[in-house]
Amino acid sequence: MNISQKIETSVTVSEQDMANAIRFLAMDAVQKANSGHPGMPMGMADAVSVLFNRFVKIDPSMPYWPDRDRFVLSAGHGSMLLYAIHHLIGFTDMPMSELAAFRQMGSKTAGHPEYGHALGVETTTGPLGQGIATAVGMAIAEQMMAARFGSSLCDHFTYVVAGDGCLQEGISHEAIDLAGHLKLRKMIVLWDDNHISIDGATKLSTSMNQLARFRAAGWDAQAVDGHDPDAVAKAIDRARKSRKPSLIACRTKIGKGAASMEGSHKTHGAALGDKEIAATREKLGWPHPPFFVPEEIKSAWENVALRGQAVRKAWELRRDTSRSRKRYEQTIGREQGADVARRLAKFRAEHRAKATKVATRQASQMALEVINDATTLTIGGSADLTGSNLTMTSQTAPITAGNFKGRYLHYGIREHGMAAAMNGIALHGGFIPYGGTFLVFSDYARGAIRLSALMGLPVVYVLTHDSIGLGEDGPTHQPVEHLAMLRATPNLNVFRPADIIETAECWEIALTEKATPSVLALSRQALPMLRTAQGEENLSIRGAYVLRETKGPRDVTLLATGSEVEIAIAAADTLRREKGIEAAVVSMPCWEKFEAQDETYREQTLGSAPRIAIEAAGRLGWDRWMGARGSFIGMRGFGASAPAGELYKHFGITAEHAAAEALRLIGHDTGGRRR
Amino acid sequence: MNISQKIETSVTVSEQDMANAIRFLAMDAVQKANSGHPGMPMGMADAVSVLFNRFVKIDPSMPYWPDRDRFVLSAGHGSMLLYAIHHLIGFTDMPMSELAAFRQMGSKTAGHPEYGHALGVETTTGPLGQGIATAVGMAIAEQMMAARFGSSLCDHFTYVVAGDGCLQEGISHEAIDLAGHLKLRKMIVLWDDNHISIDGATKLSTSMNQLARFRAAGWDAQAVDGHDPDAVAKAIDRARKSRKPSLIACRTKIGKGAASMEGSHKTHGAALGDKEIAATREKLGWPHPPFFVPEEIKSAWENVALRGQAVRKAWELRRDTSRSRKRYEQTIGREQGADVARRLAKFRAEHRAKATKVATRQASQMALEVINDATTLTIGGSADLTGSNLTMTSQTAPITAGNFKGRYLHYGIREHGMAAAMNGIALHGGFIPYGGTFLVFSDYARGAIRLSALMGLPVVYVLTHDSIGLGEDGPTHQPVEHLAMLRATPNLNVFRPADIIETAECWEIALTEKATPSVLALSRQALPMLRTAQGEENLSIRGAYVLRETKGPRDVTLLATGSEVEIAIAAADTLRREKGIEAAVVSMPCWEKFEAQDETYREQTLGSAPRIAIEAAGRLGWDRWMGARGSFIGMRGFGASAPAGELYKHFGITAEHAAAEALRLIGHDTGGRRR
Repeated sequence: MNISQKIETSVTVSEQDMANAIRFLAMDAVQKANSGHPGMPMGMADAVSVLFNRFVKIDPSMPYWPDRDRFVLSAGHGSMLLYAIHHLIGFTDMPMSELAAFRQMGSKTAGHPEYGHALGVETTTGPLGQGIATAVGMAIAEQMMAARFGSSLCDHFTYVVAGDGCLQEGISHEAIDLAGHLKLRKMIVLWDDNHISIDGATKLSTSMNQLARFRAAGWDAQAVDGHDPDAVAKAIDRARKSRKPSLIACRTKIGKGAASMEGSHKTHGAALGDKEIAATREKLGWPHPPFFVPEEIKSAWENVALRGQAVRKAWELRRDTSRSRKRYEQTIGREQGADVARRLAKFRAEHRAKATKVATRQASQMALEVINDATTLTIGGSADLTGSNLTMTSQTAPITAGNFKGRYLHYGIREHGMAAAMNGIALHGGFIPYGGTFLVFSDYARGAIRLSALMGLPVVYVLTHDSIGLGEDGPTHQPVEHLAMLRATPNLNVFRPADIIETAECWEIALTEKATPSVLALSRQALPMLRTAQGEENLSIRGAYVLRETKGPRDVTLLATGSEVEIAIAAADTLRREKGIEAAVVSMPCWEKFEAQDETYREQTLGSAPRIAIEAAGRLGWDRWMGARGSFIGMRGFGASAPAGELYKHFGITAEHAAAEALRLIGHDTGGRRR
Repeated sequence: MNISQKIETSVTVSEQDMANAIRFLAMDAVQKANSGHPGMPMGMADAVSVLFNRFVKIDPSMPYWPDRDRFVLSAGHGSMLLYAIHHLIGFTDMPMSELAAFRQMGSKTAGHPEYGHALGVETTTGPLGQGIATAVGMAIAEQMMAARFGSSLCDHFTYVVAGDGCLQEGISHEAIDLAGHLKLRKMIVLWDDNHISIDGATKLSTSMNQLARFRAAGWDAQAVDGHDPDAVAKAIDRARKSRKPSLIACRTKIGKGAASMEGSHKTHGAALGDKEIAATREKLGWPHPPFFVPEEIKSAWENVALRGQAVRKAWELRRDTSRSRKRYEQTIGREQGADVARRLAKFRAEHRAKATKVATRQASQMALEVINDATTLTIGGSADLTGSNLTMTSQTAPITAGNFKGRYLHYGIREHGMAAAMNGIALHGGFIPYGGTFLVFSDYARGAIRLSALMGLPVVYVLTHDSIGLGEDGPTHQPVEHLAMLRATPNLNVFRPADIIETAECWEIALTEKATPSVLALSRQALPMLRTAQGEENLSIRGAYVLRETKGPRDVTLLATGSEVEIAIAAADTLRREKGIEAAVVSMPCWEKFEAQDETYREQTLGSAPRIAIEAAGRLGWDRWMGARGSFIGMRGFGASAPAGELYKHFGITAEHAAAEALRLIGHDTGGRRR
């Protein structure tokens, strides 16, 4: 039993006092900002005070100590709950002045909790359901670390506070099904069961028996009065001992304590008003001015930090004397070493020599076979498309409820849950998650992919079947707008490699990114090796490069990505052979990287000749690269169901079309050279 | 009791024979295409044969007869199940030659069932979970029509065949929670409980007790042997009598009947091979050649159509003699009449005279107040943001489990479920659904929005809080990439009106679209009325137009949408006043409509002067309109949490910046005019 498992209570100050401190800080901050959500912090103040006062191990002086408990405020609109606690237990970046600057420019107290913005925020929340689904990943990572290093180095809980919104969102289903299946016994969800959502009573839109629902998913589920500290403590205690993940339904009143508005949905998303707050001070016997907490209450909260500090120091001692220390620190620090890059360089040289022709999804698997051998940090998975995404390698044994030593997660048919779980694994630390689905089903994972980008997490999305090239499955499975959607997302690298060499290069880049997630858009169909030129240099890192230069001045430049680079090369060959026209081919595996190059390189690469962009997707975004005189060959609408080769012809994405368009563009109407 | 409720069985031919016809057609078609999914049609052939043979009312000679039962193949990869049945019961566009052209270019037998492509396909499926969630909308629409016209004109069931994937996807949670809450008693889901998904056994990734889960959501749930016709029939019979929506777990073997591969995940997504099929012919005693069904079995299937035809004719008689006939036909035909346009024109004139300054979300509500009064076809709703999206009007009483006469759905915190339900309502016919959420949460609904577009449904998405202009909620709530994501989607009109006049115009256009869904991106913040010029003409219909022309030649053209048009106008004023520079302002409320204009209009509107695009969103897509010499003022990354005005300044989206950029762009470095 570690120290945090002892139930300690403060002697002089009641948990009611501690909770009231949260309540008034939340009311005051929202009132000052005239913006925000007081209802939830007030409603959950009692339960969360008990959670922190008696259970949570956390040390504000070392916020990212690896074996801390994770606390996830899934109902992120209740951010003042978190900020109030962070102030009270003494996070250095959360003085009272920050609470008074709630939701103001440059403050630490953003409207919703943002990872990396204020210390100790474990994950960005706000889009409902993301927190609970991300927590599943954290709890998985905890079990994986424990399986590797034992409970003396890894033994912590993942606590979640979730609202009705979190539990209504579809992602919650994916999350709790996966958590129940994997028996994530150290995941504990406190549900703010307040019977209120924004439109009014929850009975306007749901009749769900949540306890029965969670039990159906293999969870332990309890219901308690969320304003009864001992009942809450007893439930948490039981949950911590359960062999299953746990739901604790805390029956609460939203805006608990408010003089006249307690229980009303009006407390949810707006300031209560000076008058109501004054009346509430009266009612709760809180004579203090705004943004003031009496010393003894502050001190009771600081005991949480002191307890956490002691636990942290004891843990450090165990770590320092552990024989696994070095390996542990390499893992938690995500130190890959130089092996991955070195072996991928060798891999590229070998396949360049062999001119290996494979689908880029297969190239990805071949690269992963090397990567997963060179580092143990990578954790694979797929949303039930393992044999299509080719995300499994010989090193990645499945992770199961009984065995977390494996390196592969069968995420099930749950793209959104997978993406959020990957975020959680990355946030926990210790691993680099990658997961697969079809590119078109990035739609289903959008909410969590956006958070990968917003949080800047090293997560890799392996998105195969990346165009009409998947063929017969038809328009529901053929991405058309998805590259644009992903490229439009800030801080997300979207890679679309053209052959096995670029695929290995893109994997190498993806794994070296510390604060940017990656998408690998990969073909179903086989693609020839196009990078015939020798050289070890990773050219994809510049985002775009001249794959095929002209003899002398360029007549035209063909821009393409992925499976269409082959078409561009064929068009260039045709133009030279049949018309004596010189076309350069620029492969553009990553627009984001190209955009980051200096202007000289960009201009040199794109050239001043007319440009044709070729991509089996929509045009949106391409005008930037092809310029006003340029031309686009790609999709104008949705795809169709037929074999891939016929589709390319049907939609005119062919070397013949590209060559004809080049002739048209440069005003070349008869045979012979223009110049 | 109507005729379809009588349980009839064919005398000479067993349902086993009928099911085997499906099995062999599926095997043969997939084999010929060497692509497709035989396992599911084979596994569910028995249950679905019972369903059609004894229950479904459907008339292939009149596929869109309004009171038919709806059959939704949510597990869309099993499309051959549907095509086989359509052939067997005599859909005119489904002769045997179409089955033999499965998944080939131009055939009716696309890889996944596509609405509008083959007759009688009720909805496009393939992305898992969409079918079951769309069916919820169909069942809601059925109840709404019944509430308006009585059971003599509307009384049909919505049957769904769903697989494990459908039930694992998060959208299924949103769907079943909503269906249970609304007590959609005529929705019946047959779950193909085959214990197999693509990666292998479902126990690789789920431990869910589905029956308990559905019961927790207020459903009736039964489990039967899916290969026992009478057990299946009994369960369906009970489900039809239940006061709740029903799940029937049909325990099946995937690939049922296959000689050696029965029960294996290998039958899921690939042809079985000639040898296996031959052995299966042997095993099942089916001596017939590929693509052949004996006359008596075909005839048994055709009885389904004959029964359906009789029921349809009886219904037509009731309709023809109904006193509600005219109103019924106007409703089912979605005939709005001229009132909407006329009254919206009046609305615009009034507010032009008053120069009404309101947020466009509020303008939308004011327009809706007129629209909902002028037509009863519109059905509003919101994903629990009614007071923010402003989607409710005085006409839209809520729809509840006991009363479907209302016109407003509290969809709950379920964006994806809402979007799919709106698709279902539109598909059913009789109504025009619109539903609200924040623009940023279009992420959560992406999968269903894409299907709105792919199917071409008259659905309207009211997406408010459309930029950093929402202020303090911060980056999780501020859309940056969403306009690009939606504009990249084919066949989707994305409207971003600049003021109350454009908002009313965009609503008018959205309601007249027959085969294109609409997005209205609306501001949280108040926007001045900018369309000061008189005139009744709907200018938004051209997608973009010159809102403010220059005196004489243009020095620069400012392009903007929505809340940034105000900024463009202010910049133009500043430029004229302070520098004597003439800037035209082009409002671009709908790129898609503008793209559809002829080139002359487009060039005239955009002009030949340098252009600056202003939009509080990412740049992707704008280069097309601003041209190579153009400049973009907008977002370069995610937003931040602060009051809206400060954010606009912080990110440089201001009239000052636009004016300065104009000066830079036209090389105007000192005072005075350039020319």
